[in-house]
Amino acid sequence: MNLATLRTGWSFGEMVDGCIRHGVTAISPWRDQVASVGLDEAARIVHGNNLRVTGLCRGGMFPADSAAGRQASIDDNLRAIDEAAALGADCLVLVVGGLPGTSKDIADARKQVQDGIAAILPRARAANVPLAIEPLHPMYAADRACVNTIDQALDMAEALGEGVGVAIDVYHVWWDPNLSAAIARAGRLNRIFAHHICDWLVPTTDLLLDRGMMGDGVIDLRGFRAMIEAAGYFGPQEVEIFSRDNWWKRPGDEVVRTCVERFEQYC
Amino acid sequence: MNLATLRTGWSFGEMVDGCIRHGVTAISPWRDQVASVGLDEAARIVHGNNLRVTGLCRGGMFPADSAAGRQASIDDNLRAIDEAAALGADCLVLVVGGLPGTSKDIADARKQVQDGIAAILPRARAANVPLAIEPLHPMYAADRACVNTIDQALDMAEALGEGVGVAIDVYHVWWDPNLSAAIARAGRLNRIFAHHICDWLVPTTDLLLDRGMMGDGVIDLRGFRAMIEAAGYFGPQEVEIFSRDNWWKRPGDEVVRTCVERFEQYC
Repeated sequence: MNLATLRTGWSFGEMVDGCIRHGVTAISPWRDQVASVGLDEAARIVHGNNLRVTGLCRGGMFPADSAAGRQASIDDNLRAIDEAAALGADCLVLVVGGLPGTSKDIADARKQVQDGIAAILPRARAANVPLAIEPLHPMYAADRACVNTIDQALDMAEALGEGVGVAIDVYHVWWDPNLSAAIARAGRLNRIFAHHICDWLVPTTDLLLDRGMMGDGVIDLRGFRAMIEAAGYFGPQEVEIFSRDNWWKRPGDEVVRTCVERFEQYC
Repeated sequence: MNLATLRTGWSFGEMVDGCIRHGVTAISPWRDQVASVGLDEAARIVHGNNLRVTGLCRGGMFPADSAAGRQASIDDNLRAIDEAAALGADCLVLVVGGLPGTSKDIADARKQVQDGIAAILPRARAANVPLAIEPLHPMYAADRACVNTIDQALDMAEALGEGVGVAIDVYHVWWDPNLSAAIARAGRLNRIFAHHICDWLVPTTDLLLDRGMMGDGVIDLRGFRAMIEAAGYFGPQEVEIFSRDNWWKRPGDEVVRTCVERFEQYC
């Protein structure tokens, strides 16, 4: 369970209790959720409940329109690595950032991303925290992530070397004409670090906060899982649903229960 | 001037007059706009004013959840070819369609698209109407077009043979990590049939109807033009802006004048 799915008013502890109540034993928290109780307390809750942490969301946001801005981002990512290590997270998920300031130079933004990851990679390796580049849907290329396909993320990961892979979220990549080949390549490279699920709604009414519950949209989640498994990844599928006007307005227990039911039915 | 930009309340004749008043001598109408005055009258207005028609928008929408539905789409596309021929259009722009009915099988939708284009291609060739597949932004993959990159459109065009190419709209493809290579390939194949421009706004508040005027967004339009020209395309740049809450609410003359000014400044 990616805890962004449970922004229903629950505290961090209530989210964990809610997951456990419904048999969910792996979570992926966001840094603001960890900070809301403090890193030590969050780690105590996680370890005390013997939970697997499938990822920490999120590092990234590397491009900036000044050297000071880029350094501030690197510093923040180093702190994120330490937090991921304290939580025993399987990876730190990187939402890499978009165009800085008033720039229209996406090639340069992409270079800044690669440079930023290179700058934090030694610390990540030393802390045994894999860095998972999450290619985001192209509709976020300007303001959230200028890495927009699995292949592009893999090119970057290969250039950077060991310790960098991809987080594959169905929402972001389901449309890719090269999807099956790209997933197969990610598997061959042993660089699938996370697999996020939700669904693409028709119509989608908000670019960021209108993701669907599995089964309510058009993504062939079973077919996607088959591609991921054919590539050798049998790890958790992590439910990540940003849904300001629907699921975030429901009781947390209903959300967790529905995730479990839909996972069994559609995924 | 793509006449979708001028959905400001003007009639077809007023749009043409408005374009001419500001020195715009090439237009691309939509079929509903042509139908609003009738094909014969539209052709009379176009030819009487010695206008170039850079494209007719739009054919496509091939996938359907029944054979009858697919045939109805083919029949409609055959009529669109005849209309494009009557208008002397440089091409018929194809927005190919998304997932039919409740289907989650995007590979099958893509096959239906290719089959649909194959079915209309003989008529298009006989009428000397090039068919321009317009790859649409991946955010439209489900409901408008399951062809989402230039390379994917070119693969389809090559499989179909002569008379099929691509309409390259900056809005849909600016984010593509493979953009420059894809445009170069399109040029080598002599299959760039149209070049549409507008801008990507940050934030974008509506998936369909919040396109920006050139210069108001993040797309490097000069850089894009350089790639297109390096690929050997020196044809018109066609301004296509869907803007329900901004430009469509302004007087048509202001919109045309702004397009001309911004074209000179940014494109």
